[in-house]
Amino acid sequence: MLKLEFDNLMAETIGPENGLQSSDLERIDKLLPSAHNQLNSWRKTGDALFYDVVFDRNLLQGIAEKAEWVVSRFENVVVLGIGGSALGLRCLAGALLPPFWNLQDRTRRNGRPRLFVCDNIDPESFASLLDLIDVKKTCFVVISKSGRTTETAAQLFIAVERLKKALGNNWGENVVAITDPESGELRKLAREEKLASFDIPPKLGGRYSVMCPVGLFPAACVGIDVWALLSGAREMAKRCEKKSLSENPAYQIGSYHFWFDTQKHKHMSVMIPYSDGLMLAADWYAQLWAESLGKEGKGQTPIKALGATDQHSQVQLYMQGPADKVFTFVGTDSFRTKAKTTKIANPPEYFSYLSDHDLGSILKAEQRATSRALAQAKRPNITVTLPTIDAQHMGQFFMVYEIATATAGALYGINPFDQPGVELGKKLTREILSEGK
Amino acid sequence: MLKLEFDNLMAETIGPENGLQSSDLERIDKLLPSAHNQLNSWRKTGDALFYDVVFDRNLLQGIAEKAEWVVSRFENVVVLGIGGSALGLRCLAGALLPPFWNLQDRTRRNGRPRLFVCDNIDPESFASLLDLIDVKKTCFVVISKSGRTTETAAQLFIAVERLKKALGNNWGENVVAITDPESGELRKLAREEKLASFDIPPKLGGRYSVMCPVGLFPAACVGIDVWALLSGAREMAKRCEKKSLSENPAYQIGSYHFWFDTQKHKHMSVMIPYSDGLMLAADWYAQLWAESLGKEGKGQTPIKALGATDQHSQVQLYMQGPADKVFTFVGTDSFRTKAKTTKIANPPEYFSYLSDHDLGSILKAEQRATSRALAQAKRPNITVTLPTIDAQHMGQFFMVYEIATATAGALYGINPFDQPGVELGKKLTREILSEGK
Repeated sequence: MLKLEFDNLMAETIGPENGLQSSDLERIDKLLPSAHNQLNSWRKTGDALFYDVVFDRNLLQGIAEKAEWVVSRFENVVVLGIGGSALGLRCLAGALLPPFWNLQDRTRRNGRPRLFVCDNIDPESFASLLDLIDVKKTCFVVISKSGRTTETAAQLFIAVERLKKALGNNWGENVVAITDPESGELRKLAREEKLASFDIPPKLGGRYSVMCPVGLFPAACVGIDVWALLSGAREMAKRCEKKSLSENPAYQIGSYHFWFDTQKHKHMSVMIPYSDGLMLAADWYAQLWAESLGKEGKGQTPIKALGATDQHSQVQLYMQGPADKVFTFVGTDSFRTKAKTTKIANPPEYFSYLSDHDLGSILKAEQRATSRALAQAKRPNITVTLPTIDAQHMGQFFMVYEIATATAGALYGINPFDQPGVELGKKLTREILSEGK
Repeated sequence: MLKLEFDNLMAETIGPENGLQSSDLERIDKLLPSAHNQLNSWRKTGDALFYDVVFDRNLLQGIAEKAEWVVSRFENVVVLGIGGSALGLRCLAGALLPPFWNLQDRTRRNGRPRLFVCDNIDPESFASLLDLIDVKKTCFVVISKSGRTTETAAQLFIAVERLKKALGNNWGENVVAITDPESGELRKLAREEKLASFDIPPKLGGRYSVMCPVGLFPAACVGIDVWALLSGAREMAKRCEKKSLSENPAYQIGSYHFWFDTQKHKHMSVMIPYSDGLMLAADWYAQLWAESLGKEGKGQTPIKALGATDQHSQVQLYMQGPADKVFTFVGTDSFRTKAKTTKIANPPEYFSYLSDHDLGSILKAEQRATSRALAQAKRPNITVTLPTIDAQHMGQFFMVYEIATATAGALYGINPFDQPGVELGKKLTREILSEGK
């Protein structure tokens, strides 16, 4: 199971001004029952569908078969999607595919396709990608729940144009749509053109959707064990049904962050994975936390960092800047390489402290050292450890943070499932684009 | 020249509570002369060497020749460095190399090598990289001013071991060292093993070092126009010698940010490039800002984002969360692809607003819309525009932000050139690694 350490949040370790005292914990305890009820009420109304969707036995229906069909036919999978339609998958791929996936030859990829996730509409990137790949040998997986996402639609129209040129009337065989089961422009297109498609449950918001076909189908195409992912998520969901703070890691994450933000002036939450593979876990968390909780003038700002790299970039500020942050280290107990492949044998005298260490043990030491140094500087920090970086533990990770976010929403007294603040930008974009038409 | 727009910082646009009033500007004006003097004093003592180093005619000596030698012999350039030894180069490569550089064949790379920047010690990434490349055909460029950077040293020892196995006594031909001209472990190794090497001026700090051999040599190896980069930097350095706020963009950036942090409760500075190529400019800025100014309990926290992607992730928080941020949009007037390659011809009716637009004009519209929406929500924001993304304008960008950072340092009354807060972590790391030895 995912391990969570909260010692460096406590007054015993970091002092009463910045740390949680027993009086804080008692007050948090008193707030939790109503948050617990709110969460259960959101499960009943379907708002917190992310919680229960992983128990749905139909969720994977057709996914494995279609994924194998994609593997047998295509060299590339290109995902067209943005925000919640892309970040979960990017996080999964970063964590669970071998490094440099797209640079490896197909044998090293176990016969699986390359994966490109286009979550921006930069014309230079998109044009280069279309030049790089053979569209005939490419499956475009287009993801948009509403079917009305400007960026994704724009990418799709360009890709379809290219496909039509290359394949004529058969272009639709190279497209898979993942969208609302009934409504929206993408569903309409999928019906009209008889595209292969998967459903996004209508009540499941984008940032909570990694464990539905949005994340699962493309992940399956590149050989990620989606069954283990869901199994991990279910384990964590069960663990987080407990009412009591000390037994429920999602309540701990959610309520401690809420408390630090609202009572201890820690208005930023920094997540620092100590693993390249886990780097995008911080991006995924940053979306979930920001878009769910940043409304009505409230919300703690999530910040993504990377260890050990950002020790040489951000840690100066974290150690000696304003005491306005709470930190989460995300690490692993065992890297997926044999220690001897990166072992340091006979370093020069100055570096004798490195001898017989490997990069993994050095990285782990830096993580522990940074966590201790922050604690000594009275900066609250949590450590989350994946025993190994695999699908099972990623499922646990996603689920504990989704429940923690909903818990924090209940404590802030806001709806963590909507995003009213993005409408104005969308409206202004359409206006600017329509000018002169 | 780089264009800077400050209208959306002003009270006229975003109201008196969040915007700069004429009384604010007058007070800033009064603070500037002493900051101006401090800056000039730092130039005299050599602390602000970044300012003058770009005028040094010897700076590029030997770089072009050695870079061409690397191009003629090697398939890969692998840079070993972390923090300031890597971020500037990564930013340059992101901005100025064609997308998917390492996936292109050599012809499309104009005969230039692939580039890998190893700025972390994740064992999985590093072992995979060493498996992926042929070390015989690889030039390792190892960068550390002190020569004592744990991470870089560890990588180097592993790489040298591999090179010795592959090449025996000739391994040193595949290594270029960039370090202090006289002292440190890496200089010692370079002397003993007769490695090719370049100097880092001793007073030039890592985060200010992109326009010395640290950034310039590897950039030259992949064909980046380092002369244009320096020329742009010199243009901006001259422009920023003006005393007056309205004529000096670095003073504007530096003093406005200082003012928003200390007087207007904007404790975070979000940089949002609207271009994949410029994405890492925000990472480079985040290091510069955090490590220079985050000390003595002071400092504004830099946050990196990416448009349009983060409209679907962070903009909800930016629009409706706490009003504690100042924003900087970084964009370009002209993307380096022909509009017709990403043009949308006949979209379905719902998307008629997209017709005859291309991805570049859509992305640009989203940038303008988001900036306007933030202004309507009374959130202060700056727009920085590169007429084109090229070496000249990147040089201007680096220089204006380096001077702005030093200016802010003078205004905060702190030394923007040291980083005392990272020592404790280094000490604890060595202790943990030495345990039981």
